[in-house]
Amino acid sequence: MNYYELQDLDLKHIWHPCSQMKDYETFPPIVIDRGEGVWLYDKQGNRYLDAVSSWWVNLFGHANPRISKAISDQAKKLEHVIFANFTHEPAIHVAAKLVEKTPDGLEKVFFADNGSAAIEVALKMSFQYRAQMGQPEKQRFLTFTNAYHGETLGALSVGSVDLYNKVFTPLLLNVVRAEGPDCFRCPFNEHPDTCDAPCAMFAEEQLENHADTLSAAIIEPLIQIAGGMKMYPPVFLKKLRDLCDKYDVHLIADEIAVGFGRTGTLFACEQAGITPDFLCLSKGITGGYLPLSAVLTRNKIYYAFYDDYGTMKAFLHSHSYSGNPLALRAAQEVLSIFEEEHVLEKNAAKEKRLKQLAHEAFDGLPYVGEYRQTGFVGAIELVADQKSKTPFPAEERIGYQIYKKALKKGILLRPLGNILYFMPPYVISEEEIAWMVETAKQAIVEFFNEKGMGVR
Amino acid sequence: MNYYELQDLDLKHIWHPCSQMKDYETFPPIVIDRGEGVWLYDKQGNRYLDAVSSWWVNLFGHANPRISKAISDQAKKLEHVIFANFTHEPAIHVAAKLVEKTPDGLEKVFFADNGSAAIEVALKMSFQYRAQMGQPEKQRFLTFTNAYHGETLGALSVGSVDLYNKVFTPLLLNVVRAEGPDCFRCPFNEHPDTCDAPCAMFAEEQLENHADTLSAAIIEPLIQIAGGMKMYPPVFLKKLRDLCDKYDVHLIADEIAVGFGRTGTLFACEQAGITPDFLCLSKGITGGYLPLSAVLTRNKIYYAFYDDYGTMKAFLHSHSYSGNPLALRAAQEVLSIFEEEHVLEKNAAKEKRLKQLAHEAFDGLPYVGEYRQTGFVGAIELVADQKSKTPFPAEERIGYQIYKKALKKGILLRPLGNILYFMPPYVISEEEIAWMVETAKQAIVEFFNEKGMGVR
Ligand SMILES: Cc1ncc(COP(=O)(O)O)c(C=O)c1O
Ligand SMILES: Cc1ncc(COP(=O)(O)O)c(C=O)c1O
Repeated sequence: MNYYELQDLDLKHIWHPCSQMKDYETFPPIVIDRGEGVWLYDKQGNRYLDAVSSWWVNLFGHANPRISKAISDQAKKLEHVIFANFTHEPAIHVAAKLVEKTPDGLEKVFFADNGSAAIEVALKMSFQYRAQMGQPEKQRFLTFTNAYHGETLGALSVGSVDLYNKVFTPLLLNVVRAEGPDCFRCPFNEHPDTCDAPCAMFAEEQLENHADTLSAAIIEPLIQIAGGMKMYPPVFLKKLRDLCDKYDVHLIADEIAVGFGRTGTLFACEQAGITPDFLCLSKGITGGYLPLSAVLTRNKIYYAFYDDYGTMKAFLHSHSYSGNPLALRAAQEVLSIFEEEHVLEKNAAKEKRLKQLAHEAFDGLPYVGEYRQTGFVGAIELVADQKSKTPFPAEERIGYQIYKKALKKGILLRPLGNILYFMPPYVISEEEIAWMVETAKQAIVEFFNEKGMGVR
Repeated sequence: MNYYELQDLDLKHIWHPCSQMKDYETFPPIVIDRGEGVWLYDKQGNRYLDAVSSWWVNLFGHANPRISKAISDQAKKLEHVIFANFTHEPAIHVAAKLVEKTPDGLEKVFFADNGSAAIEVALKMSFQYRAQMGQPEKQRFLTFTNAYHGETLGALSVGSVDLYNKVFTPLLLNVVRAEGPDCFRCPFNEHPDTCDAPCAMFAEEQLENHADTLSAAIIEPLIQIAGGMKMYPPVFLKKLRDLCDKYDVHLIADEIAVGFGRTGTLFACEQAGITPDFLCLSKGITGGYLPLSAVLTRNKIYYAFYDDYGTMKAFLHSHSYSGNPLALRAAQEVLSIFEEEHVLEKNAAKEKRLKQLAHEAFDGLPYVGEYRQTGFVGAIELVADQKSKTPFPAEERIGYQIYKKALKKGILLRPLGNILYFMPPYVISEEEIAWMVETAKQAIVEFFNEKGMGVR
């Protein structure tokens, strides 16, 4: 079948995720054949630098030889086994390593198979814990504006992005929402490098008002990714941890997107020196190969469920593929690569280079409200007016149009509304970083020029 | 690390799914090293016949050479790519093949990555369809007693098994429940081979009462698996389809467990000659290798979401690993194996043999209420009293104790309450079938003998 026949067959049968399929009439799906390092190659021989790590999952490049070999070997040995009453070495090694590498106090690992399911596990564990510990009135969850935690109804309930939630409101839990940190448009006119997170007062207010009925608070540490790359300082997390302790509310840290080195440390919570009660991991855990997620928690929580069977205190959540050996073998290799290849040290230099080049390229460029970066995540927020920081109207789809233009130049730069961002696989070279920044800039400049909104 | 050290390390860090972890004190996790065909081998050299296909996922044996090779090849080429605006050949081929093989009228395929997520997708699609089609009052879902559809809050809401749901009731949707078919304890004293499903009247009653507010009905076609292997005849499905049409309610068929040949046909709906509005698939779709799920639906539904972006009608559900190429390459191989190796034809002979041997072994055996079988799924329902069909009290954990005994004899026969069942990989040989049935019988007989409840 030729390229166009494949595209037609795709459109005949596939309903793609997170897509208005009518858009595909003028922008048909790109048929990818193979990947190598940061590059994706389509079946026509074009290549694209995967600047978004394919929705923030890829760490060590496409078709990474170490991870591919690990999966091949595992597939020949044991592809899967029921994970109730049975276990296997990849699971045991990954669990032990995760406990070692995550903040102190997280001792137990519960596996699931996608990010949303990890969120559901954390919410359900917190809820059941309260029911079993004589706090049955603590049934609700605190979340933040601009939060995103996934798409299943529980995960969606604790999200706050209208685009995903609004139509489903009647199906969602009645959660408590606090204003989250928004450093670009800080209501206190503070700067994130120097502030003491006065905006934690919004969470405090809600915690104080609802402590009696709150089971847990949930947050994406350091960066609210899907909600618009909102970056905030560790001090906010530190304050939130203290507040949760004060009001006896569990803290769920959703590091599904920021975990595994994205923020410069292996886990974002480290930068605040805090231990959440539940830590949710997924995406990069398999290096971007396979769906897998893990929820880490404290022994205190675990032992609240540990009793004679007849007391019916067990946590009975499961997925068919919980503890899948193929995914766990990939995770084992990922954790080895972090150690053996000194990934975080090497990333530090690349992050610095990206920061320098991106500031040079974007600072002061018309319609760029701000370039901001945390670790290996860099974001360009486009605005209609730089002084007032007025956003472009969503319906103009500025980010989407620049994304299409950038693709023609060979970068996959799928935006979040009017925010373009760099979140590349860690194997990106300094030359590739420079090319990525320069090409993204060209796409932006050309787009506004063609619109007659002249940039230089 | 030796075997016992591995077990200790597992228990130190892993919280297993669907488990009271205290049970593991006396029954530590079995550390599996490798699989081959129907057999799982632990690290001490013991082997176990996987009679439950590791939670109903494995089709063609553990470490199946064809599927393992397909995954190895794919891992070297393209492990993953974002599935919005991008695609790849395994996805295109699997989607086309699924549309070809599933009941007529299902034209579009939406991929997700576990069974629960597929259910959430179907519920959300049905709900959003109503909102967009001027039926916003149709917001609720009809389900059946003994239903099981997964663990995320949406999927759990449409389940009816107290064991999983009860503690979470305050978090669940307010669904409509109808009494489901229960042929072993038929309230009409009918036999499933000859009846006309008078029990469909319970569904009709609820549909009539709630038609105005119902968006969809959801059911596991032919067998409610987790709810206790409740098997019922196709005529029930046929009636339910007609009722859903009459009351303008979508029909969601959850073939996550029964699909891919378990009931004797590729999909269970075929036996009733019906087309659901949403068909949910997972588990066997990758041959038991990797988490993947698919929701198939009609063009009529798809086009209700197909419009200019600005109308905000898109279905924005996604998972990071939606459309994962490794899982889809496995699925592609599974579909080829079905065709090239004439699986359903070969299974028919094995199913017949299982039926014959199992009836010989279990009919009339004390405490066996019934042996029943649909396709390649056979179930032994143990009862305290055969005449009255009185169940054993759940707290006696009869099934669990026989499961432990059977493991010592080399069969993995994880029960559902007091129901033991055979749902083996299709590669099981006739000799292995005979051994499985005989060994299961021995475990049951010895257990009751040792309990002083003398069997023969
Ligand atoms: C912070 C965060 N939490 C949860 C999720 C949901 O994970 P999944 O898409 O695997 O269900 C995402 C996915 O983008 C995420 O970014
Ligand atoms: C009928 C049915 N639906 C849904 C599910 C949920 O699938 P998963 O465990 O992959 O979330 C299951 C799993 O056992 C099932 O049997």
